Amino acid sequence: MLVKELIASIGSNKVSQTESDLYNFSKDESSHTPVEPDVVVFPESQEDILEVLKIARKFHTSVVPYGAGSGLEGQVIPIQKGISMSFERMNQVVEFQHEDMLITVQAGMTRLQLNEFVNRHGLYFPIDPGADATIGGMTATNASGTTAVKFGSMRDQLLDLKVIMADGKVIHTGSKAKKSSSGYHLTGLFAGSEGTLGIITEITLRLHGIPEHTIAARCTFKTIEECASAAQTILMSGTPVLRMELVDANSIKQVNEYGGYSYPEEASLFFEFSGSRLSATEDAETTKLVCTELGCQNFVTAIGSNERALLWKARHEMAYAYRHMKGMSSTGADVCVPISKLPQMVEYARKLLDESGLHGGTFGHVGDGNFHTIVMYDPTKTHEKQKADHTNDQLALLAISLGGTCTGEHGVGLGKKKFQLQEHGEALMVMKQMKNLLDPMNILNPGKIFP
Amino acid sequence: MLVKELIASIGSNKVSQTESDLYNFSKDESSHTPVEPDVVVFPESQEDILEVLKIARKFHTSVVPYGAGSGLEGQVIPIQKGISMSFERMNQVVEFQHEDMLITVQAGMTRLQLNEFVNRHGLYFPIDPGADATIGGMTATNASGTTAVKFGSMRDQLLDLKVIMADGKVIHTGSKAKKSSSGYHLTGLFAGSEGTLGIITEITLRLHGIPEHTIAARCTFKTIEECASAAQTILMSGTPVLRMELVDANSIKQVNEYGGYSYPEEASLFFEFSGSRLSATEDAETTKLVCTELGCQNFVTAIGSNERALLWKARHEMAYAYRHMKGMSSTGADVCVPISKLPQMVEYARKLLDESGLHGGTFGHVGDGNFHTIVMYDPTKTHEKQKADHTNDQLALLAISLGGTCTGEHGVGLGKKKFQLQEHGEALMVMKQMKNLLDPMNILNPGKIFP
Repeated sequence: MLVKELIASIGSNKVSQTESDLYNFSKDESSHTPVEPDVVVFPESQEDILEVLKIARKFHTSVVPYGAGSGLEGQVIPIQKGISMSFERMNQVVEFQHEDMLITVQAGMTRLQLNEFVNRHGLYFPIDPGADATIGGMTATNASGTTAVKFGSMRDQLLDLKVIMADGKVIHTGSKAKKSSSGYHLTGLFAGSEGTLGIITEITLRLHGIPEHTIAARCTFKTIEECASAAQTILMSGTPVLRMELVDANSIKQVNEYGGYSYPEEASLFFEFSGSRLSATEDAETTKLVCTELGCQNFVTAIGSNERALLWKARHEMAYAYRHMKGMSSTGADVCVPISKLPQMVEYARKLLDESGLHGGTFGHVGDGNFHTIVMYDPTKTHEKQKADHTNDQLALLAISLGGTCTGEHGVGLGKKKFQLQEHGEALMVMKQMKNLLDPMNILNPGKIFP
Repeated sequence: MLVKELIASIGSNKVSQTESDLYNFSKDESSHTPVEPDVVVFPESQEDILEVLKIARKFHTSVVPYGAGSGLEGQVIPIQKGISMSFERMNQVVEFQHEDMLITVQAGMTRLQLNEFVNRHGLYFPIDPGADATIGGMTATNASGTTAVKFGSMRDQLLDLKVIMADGKVIHTGSKAKKSSSGYHLTGLFAGSEGTLGIITEITLRLHGIPEHTIAARCTFKTIEECASAAQTILMSGTPVLRMELVDANSIKQVNEYGGYSYPEEASLFFEFSGSRLSATEDAETTKLVCTELGCQNFVTAIGSNERALLWKARHEMAYAYRHMKGMSSTGADVCVPISKLPQMVEYARKLLDESGLHGGTFGHVGDGNFHTIVMYDPTKTHEKQKADHTNDQLALLAISLGGTCTGEHGVGLGKKKFQLQEHGEALMVMKQMKNLLDPMNILNPGKIFP
């Protein structure tokens, strides 16, 4: 009945129940258990989405927006089955205001599509989670990545969202002004709400000028704690870095094997500096000086764009290098803590990994206190999965007790629900009240965020 | 009865009905009509605030938080009388995490108190609205000012708020992690909510390293539209500016008279560049080059700190130079538009001023598209007030129609309520639902924001 009404309403070419579609929309890149939706819809317009929502309300069926499926916490898994809503046909530029360095895109446009479009105008969108996620998905999870130390998270780059509410209301959450003190800040509220408060259909983003000059660099220290301390010193010095990534020896080894690289298999920092030629060079030199004083064993800079691309390719392949180990599953912590707590967190992560006897590593965006600990396990062995989950849990709990968060950038989805009360306390009740207010039938991505 | 219960509950030394207190808490720096509260309370702790709220609920009386009274839209005017809540006794540092460049302060601490405290540690808090506002007030109105082009608004500098809700619930909206994807972004929602959703008692802020070197500069153009175009070109070039302010000839004249300065009475841009000595110098030189190419008639740099302070003192006195004209009142527009619309807006502002025959000027934070048009009128002449209000209204409406906002940094309060529906459309209903949800008795600063 549901499917019939969908077909009657938006047309059969936008509704699918093929085996491959149901399978594709059952999962993301995490190891959370897939669940197939009852049906997948491929809206091509706001009107289509409004129709789907009307039918969802009628049948009391869940609607789960789906971007590129590159999420890591099961946000797009339709755990109550129902309707998965693909944004792959809504991936166009709505308006490009070159002179204002603004663009409005549909939610299904991916990060690389966006950059391909704006790069030829000398502009770029800097948020870089590694995967070629959709802008809608990145907004819904408040994604960030290697450039967060300079550009923050998605939320910091948003000016306006067009959102379709559960009741069919269509709202704009902001405007095209670079700042505003007018009314409540709904833009920030919908960003990171993982499709639970409304369906984000259009996003207005700040763009940035492509820097004149960029320098990449890497260096190694004896221990990962020394890396974390060096990162803290660089931040305190006020030297502007575009990226500053920490990678432990295990992870370097892993990516060397995966990608055929030959990086020194030691605790490492990877950097990127950008700006004018003069300022980028100065920043790289200041950083080199700080690292050398703190006992860094080498400091290699890469200026040519191929050389830089290779270095960052390796860093971006890190998660894949683990996740694509044959026959293995992985679980990943995504904690973010005040920078001064990083050495303690990183040490604890290594201790937990050692105790578990499982394979894994630590790497992440040390510039903002966010780092990942990936733990590999054999999914056929229950005790390995338990140990991996235990490691993950202990890291989240320590991060929260140190004033941090259980998720710096992956979002809550299914995997971090159990930490929400611990992290937010009474505020979780306020969040839940808002969910009930804006989606009283609980049809928008139900079962996510709230425990 | 209300006052007796307040005294019995928190002590007579924290409750006042003196004539001077009732007068002081009846107004802010705007020309909105003052209203005296029934009583002023001076809480010294969270417990005091909880007690006051309990009594407010019992008597169904409004509670209006009051910081430094430096607001410009009547946010602190207790239009339903009731209780005004002063934060002057809650102005302490709660926790200073030097290594994390974070600080948690009570809402009553002022911006200058904060900077005095952190400056000696090599750090500063950059948001600068001119007035020595409280951090609580700046958070509640999402204030910004001359540094917004680099540091954004208050909202961008917040990590966590402690908020007391209407029902007495005490929540933390965030954590001390520099970024998070955990739960709904309540921090951004309470920032800018003007005390209508909850009472902000503690604020955790990002701090920044004091830059090694700072250069101020100014230049003049033939027209204010040329100033606006030059500002746009500088932004497009990607040159990092810390401040970039536009001032029209009238306003320069006004401040020259007020402060005894002798700046050239022409349309001007004021700049500040900061960073390492090398990078600040380079940025100033690039800007000089751009301005000269675009027909700037002079470009003067000020490097010494006294020289810089003098230059910025003049800029900060601008609003006072108008507002302190004997016997005159003023009304001020605070629109913010996409940068490309600035020349059009500025031209329109001048046209409206000319048509009104009233004295006034245009100045503002051109780096983010936010600018003020101040209109002076004789409060004893009804038609002058009407003309001033008309100018203000027309500017707000044009800004909204160009994709901008009626208020870039002053907030809605009483003065911008009438534009809320036009600017937010259906989203205003969502905001109102949230207000009803979190403050069902409507005791928290009633009559603000919503028309």
